[in-house]
Amino acid sequence: MLARVSSAPAYKRLPRAVREQQMLDAAVKVFSRRGFHAASMDEIADDAGISKPMVYAYLGTKEELFVACLHREGTRMTEAIAGAAAPDLPADVRLWRGLRAFFSFVGAHRDGWAVLYRQARGSQPFAGELAAMRARLVEVVAGMLGHALRAEGREVGETELEVVAYALVGASESLADWLADHPEADPEKTATRMMNAAWLGAGQLLRGATWRPPHA
Amino acid sequence: MLARVSSAPAYKRLPRAVREQQMLDAAVKVFSRRGFHAASMDEIADDAGISKPMVYAYLGTKEELFVACLHREGTRMTEAIAGAAAPDLPADVRLWRGLRAFFSFVGAHRDGWAVLYRQARGSQPFAGELAAMRARLVEVVAGMLGHALRAEGREVGETELEVVAYALVGASESLADWLADHPEADPEKTATRMMNAAWLGAGQLLRGATWRPPHA
Repeated sequence: MLARVSSAPAYKRLPRAVREQQMLDAAVKVFSRRGFHAASMDEIADDAGISKPMVYAYLGTKEELFVACLHREGTRMTEAIAGAAAPDLPADVRLWRGLRAFFSFVGAHRDGWAVLYRQARGSQPFAGELAAMRARLVEVVAGMLGHALRAEGREVGETELEVVAYALVGASESLADWLADHPEADPEKTATRMMNAAWLGAGQLLRGATWRPPHA
Repeated sequence: MLARVSSAPAYKRLPRAVREQQMLDAAVKVFSRRGFHAASMDEIADDAGISKPMVYAYLGTKEELFVACLHREGTRMTEAIAGAAAPDLPADVRLWRGLRAFFSFVGAHRDGWAVLYRQARGSQPFAGELAAMRARLVEVVAGMLGHALRAEGREVGETELEVVAYALVGASESLADWLADHPEADPEKTATRMMNAAWLGAGQLLRGATWRPPHA
């Protein structure tokens, strides 16, 4: 997978990193359009304007390429979420921003979500990549809640925080699926709905309480 | 799959329904122990005390058998959840009972959950079976919340209810994974934690509020 490619005369010379991004862009597009099984390396190479042997040389087999797509998209998403939740804001605003970043990402990549993440969820070796991403998100959310608690001088066990974080991440993933299946649904409104369910709780919601996003 | 099997002289005659349950019991056990790919029809037939041709005749290919396992386990689980949440109880007690039934089921079938549900989540044709089960659970939860709201004379849109239900089901599924990976964790305590996250909301939790299960 890391073998050096000495030359590729038929194609314009570009830095390796740029080539790789082009291949991944093409691969995400083709996997999203066709699904993992029906996607062909020929179409990915064509779309990237790169020879098929070069795609194999740079990024390996179709499975490895799919894992690389998942890894890049997952990293982008996790960074968007972690970056949105600046540490100096109140906990609910941080959660809101993180959720908004998450649902905006899913809303902008509905097809990719439906294929990449659903495909990845159950089947090895993709499940491992997704589990790692989920673990990272759980860590971000648990860290954020722990930070907010310590700021109030309160202490909650690691397990309690982890469990709440798993619940939040799982609820968000489930709503992301819902969002991917509802092209008419608005990502920001979905984030607000998630805040209502997560922050106020269903019980508060039943009593008529509503959480509103702060004015930007 | 529904072909009649005229005779099986080497084995004791049993009603078809009993035979099928024996095969499914064996299949769930073997799939849980080996995973879908490594599981062999020979081992399943051996474990059920039934000839391999009869397993094929009754329940079809290995894929069809896996779907049949998922369907039976999923139906049992959904029925346990729906049955636990008697309609004449307050909404939070119903949710609590449903969650307790769910996490108790997962706790009693940790291996099965890890293999059957994780395997099923992403890969076709298993994903369809799991999606149907999830849709049924969302319907149960949304129906329960809608019922509680109407009892208070309030009306909430179908989409709002569906979104809250998706969030609850997704959060529970995520915690079920956590539970499957933590053999030392108590299912009932996990259900209480889920109530705290879902019913009171993370915000309420941060303010120190705690929901406690009613005395049985």
